[in-house]
Parts: sequence; structure tokens; C-alpha cells
Amino acid sequence: MVDSFYLDLAIKKAWDYQCQTLPNPAVGAVILDKFGAILSIQAHKVAGEPHAEVLALQESYYRLSGDSSIFNLFQSQEIHQFLLENAKDYFKDITLYVTLEPCIHRGKTPSCAELLKLLGIKKIIIGTQDCNKEAKGGANALKSCGVQVVKAWEEKELLRAYEYSKALLIPFSSLQSKGSFILFKYASRLDGSIDGGQISSKAAQSFMHNLRTRVDTLLISGKSVRLDNPILDCRYATLKDKRPPCVTILTHLRDFPKKAPLFSVPKREVKILHKIEKFEGFVMCEGGADLFKTLIPQIDMVLFFLNPSMQSDFQLHMQLQANFRILYSQQIGDDLILWLQPFRD
Amino acid sequence: MVDSFYLDLAIKKAWDYQCQTLPNPAVGAVILDKFGAILSIQAHKVAGEPHAEVLALQESYYRLSGDSSIFNLFQSQEIHQFLLENAKDYFKDITLYVTLEPCIHRGKTPSCAELLKLLGIKKIIIGTQDCNKEAKGGANALKSCGVQVVKAWEEKELLRAYEYSKALLIPFSSLQSKGSFILFKYASRLDGSIDGGQISSKAAQSFMHNLRTRVDTLLISGKSVRLDNPILDCRYATLKDKRPPCVTILTHLRDFPKKAPLFSVPKREVKILHKIEKFEGFVMCEGGADLFKTLIPQIDMVLFFLNPSMQSDFQLHMQLQANFRILYSQQIGDDLILWLQPFRD
Repeated sequence: MVDSFYLDLAIKKAWDYQCQTLPNPAVGAVILDKFGAILSIQAHKVAGEPHAEVLALQESYYRLSGDSSIFNLFQSQEIHQFLLENAKDYFKDITLYVTLEPCIHRGKTPSCAELLKLLGIKKIIIGTQDCNKEAKGGANALKSCGVQVVKAWEEKELLRAYEYSKALLIPFSSLQSKGSFILFKYASRLDGSIDGGQISSKAAQSFMHNLRTRVDTLLISGKSVRLDNPILDCRYATLKDKRPPCVTILTHLRDFPKKAPLFSVPKREVKILHKIEKFEGFVMCEGGADLFKTLIPQIDMVLFFLNPSMQSDFQLHMQLQANFRILYSQQIGDDLILWLQPFRD
Repeated sequence: MVDSFYLDLAIKKAWDYQCQTLPNPAVGAVILDKFGAILSIQAHKVAGEPHAEVLALQESYYRLSGDSSIFNLFQSQEIHQFLLENAKDYFKDITLYVTLEPCIHRGKTPSCAELLKLLGIKKIIIGTQDCNKEAKGGANALKSCGVQVVKAWEEKELLRAYEYSKALLIPFSSLQSKGSFILFKYASRLDGSIDGGQISSKAAQSFMHNLRTRVDTLLISGKSVRLDNPILDCRYATLKDKRPPCVTILTHLRDFPKKAPLFSVPKREVKILHKIEKFEGFVMCEGGADLFKTLIPQIDMVLFFLNPSMQSDFQLHMQLQANFRILYSQQIGDDLILWLQPFRD
């Protein structure tokens, strides 16, 4: 199969953890053995935990050696060390596809480019450049050591994969460039209806609750609080960390009643806001048409949950003129989720 | 990688040609070499042309031998013959994933099970059984010749792939069991709006026009004809065959005016219908909310085109209570298409 096929597999895997990796980028990696068989498809999952390349090398080592003891290691530093001590000979002929240039700096984890260099891999196909000043340069460092380096942005048949690799970085790049990433979560049915109770399936709610454990601010309108009485916790999260997100309520009411269940969630800060201010960090907005319309100039990405149903009568629907680019879509339980980027004129 | 991964690749490939293969089923196939590297991912494309397995064998032969002359062959009979004469030694250790049990009968093309048997492949993983009386039995025939046969419906970790392989067959099975397959094509925006001119992108229209070349009847409401003045031809089809579909207009008007451009398309039959009758063959319905509501008890599958946009004001929307199962979704140009199965209570 052609390079774009394997790079696409890496891109798809990375989307499964989109935003969950923040403030780190979502990154996917695929490793092929010397015969071209897939050894591993992995993605970075949580900031501070091993990068995609390291998880892919870990799994590949197991497939090549049959030694499962490497799965007892969870820290990036430990896996690096283990591979350098035990696995050097296994990786001479492997090919690595990775959506983002391997980091060259030592951050919370050791440098991936350094590890790949020391393991002496044969070939690397890179989806997009690292724009982080500290992390970039991995591609050239590998090239200078004799690794075959293919840069998707320099190959005509990989330009589409390059675009999709770049799209993966929107949340990360937004945080890097302006200090905030604004994600709007919206849920509707096939007919556009958004009222009449819970729209999304349980699996989709779990997905959302996992994301909530990662956000710096959960932004919601005062109207939603008054009408829906939400708790806004992470009870359906499948991740271990079920920390409830801090909530900001956007309302014109000067004396907003603090009665909704969300106010009594332990370890939560609630902020009342009367006008849009400069946001910081990963802000997830959950709301309906009104909040969407208010925030559209700020929104970096939309997470659109589509439930495959229609409701006979409905009043509420979005009254907004907007165009989006579909970055990725995937089925979560019974629902479809679409990651959308607003088109700016 | 596990078997379900490769079976999923075969399933995805088959959906790209869903309904275009009618009256044949949509089938996908993946072949791995003896080291587990992917040699080919193929799907059946048009009835009368080679089956998925044969196309996958053809491509794999080329990858293994470097002999591209096999691509000069287009007839299934010729490819079978060529492989038996030239390729026997290449396939001893290959693994084949196929979404449907290889046929054992000689139809328009020779038997795939026979070919696989003679080539002596090592292993086959089958998504679902063939329910066609004449075609079934391929799995057992292969097993009795010493081929390792894995049936997805007998393996716990492949049951999901089995369900998805079965879902691929809905159009084919509908035709087989009741003589008709009714597909409703619907297009809307993210907000449920369906008015205000052309909704879908050019690529999505091409996809639709390709399907139109395959239908036995294109069903449309009299209201659509009067309001939209459609031509309903296949001008954007990318397939060679741009035969315009026969059109049936469902209307209560006894004396329907035959002025719309669709009446002047050469080689087209137009039928006027005053009430729903028993349909035959592959019927594609194109229309809005009213036709959808009228036909919902008859509909076997919905092809939902979703354009990633919102329109500020709209009046029209579906007023229907209905639930669907998402069978598959894929991006076509700027749009997303969803293949949906109505839930019957």
C-alpha cells in the first residue's frame, strides 16, 4: 500500500484522542516491520504520558520480540530506557508513519527524535512540521543520521495527508498562538431539532464527559442553566480522572441565582460572566442556538453530535448562516460526531 | 493487527461501491502476504465485472510478481485463467479477508471458491454467509480442501464485523427476498434546512449521478417536478455509462403536465403514478419531507447527504418521528453521507 494509506491510519487514530491530549497536540503513529506488515497503530493519549511514537515502538517491540514485560512500563522515560537497552536490533528495518514531526526537545518526556535516532530506524514519513520552536527540527536531525525522511508537505501524493495532519493540530496551535482554544459542542438530530430532552446516546455522553475532564473552562449560558438544571460533571467519563470542570456562566442577569445542581459539585469553581471576555486555555462551550450565535466569532472548532433520529414537531432550531469544513467524523455509539472548522470570510 | 482490523478495511472499501454493484451484493476483500503485509484492498464494482476476491488477487499477483500485464485483463474469466496458469506458486501463503462468502456457482463470472481452492491459499476470513442458494457453500468447500477458514459469525471478536458485513448486504438481500430495494435519498444542512437551492457539493452530486445510472426506477413526487423543474439525468456521473434513469412521478394530479425538462431526456421512460404500488427492482426516491413521510413504511435504506452549513432562515424541515441505525458514513467532497436503516417498531 502507498504511504498515504498508512499516514491516514495514523491520522484516524489520533482523532480518537483529539482534545484529550491538550495542551499537547493530538498525534498518531503507525509502524511497519521490514516486510511492510503493520506492527502497531497508536496515538498520544494524555499530556505527560508517552508520545504516539513511543507507544507505537512499545507495541512493536512486543510484536517483534514476544516480550510483554515492556507493557509493565508506563512512564516515557522508562520505555525509552528499556528500548535502548533491549531493543536496538529490532528496529533497524522498521518504517514509522507519524502525523507530527518527532520532538527534539526534552519536555515532560525525553526526545522522540533522539530515541528514533539511537534505535536506527530505516524510514520515517512525517505528516506535518512541528511549529513549536523548542520541539521542531526532529526531521532534519533524523535525516542527518541516515534515516530516510519523507515530509508529506514536500510530496504531491501526500499533500492531502499533510492537510489532514495539520488539521489535527488546530486545538494545540490555537492554544500556542493565542492562549486559548474554543470548542463549541452542539447536539442535534437529523432534522435539526435540538429540543425534547436528551439527544445523544450514552456512549456519546461518555465521550463528552471524558472531554470535560480535560477542559479549563466549561462555558454555558445562564438560560441553559435555568432551563436544563444541569450538573455538568463527568460521571459518565471512562477516564480515571473524573475531576469536574470549572464552569463559567454567561448571563445578562446581574444577580444570577445559584441554585442549580452544578453549584453544589465539590471542588468546582463557578464564575459568572456578564459579557464575553478574553478566554484562556481550553474552553468548551455547551449550549444551543443562542450561545452558538453569540460565540461564533470566537469559536475555533465545533464538535457536532448528530443523533440518527427525527422528531415529529419541533420549534427550536439554529437560525444562523454559517459554513464549516468537516475535519473528521466518527461513529460514537449510536451517534455520529463531526469535528468542524468554521469558515471565516 | 487483529483479524477485525483487516475485515473492517474490506467492509469500508465495499461501502464505496454500495448500490453500484446491484443486483449483485457490495463486497470488499483484503489480501495479506505471508508476512502479513497488505497486498491489496479491493471491492466489487459493477455486476458482470470481476468479484472483489478476483480484483484483490489480480492486484496481489502484480505486487508479488511485478508483472503488470495482468492489468490488461478485465474479464473475470480471463483473470481466473491467467492466475491459474501463471500465479499458482504466489498464493500458497496468502490470507484473504472477504466480507461475503466466496461464491461457489458459475454465474456471469466463474466460481471464486473454485479459484481460491486451485490457487491453494492458506487462510480465509469471511465476514458473512452467502444466503443466495446457488452461491453459498464456498466456505465449507474451501475448508474441505485444507484452507484455514474463519467465519466471523462464529468468533466472538469478529461479531461486530459480522454485523457490519451483513449490513452491506441489505440492498442485495432486499432485492433477493422481495424483488425490490427502496433507497430514499435526502439532503439537508446541519440545521435540518432543506430549502434555498442546491444543498450538496459537486462531488456529492457526482456520487448521486453515478447511483442514478444503476437504478431501475427513480421515484419523485409531482410537487418536486413542478417546483424544481429537474432534469434527473446523469450528467455529473463519473462512470462511463450515463444512461438516464427511468422516472416514476407520484402525483394526485390526474392530468399531470408533461412540460418539465425531465420529459425530454432521450431514451427515458416516464411513468405517472397516482398511488403507491408494489415496486420492482432498485428504486431510488429523491425528494423532500412529504415524499419521505409517504414512503417511510416502504423504505429499506436512507442515503442522507449532510452539507456542513447552516442557513439563517428556513421554513421547510422534516416533520417526522423516526429512528435510524447508522450503517456507514463517509465524506464525499465537502459533504458527509450517511447510510441509514430505518428502525421498525
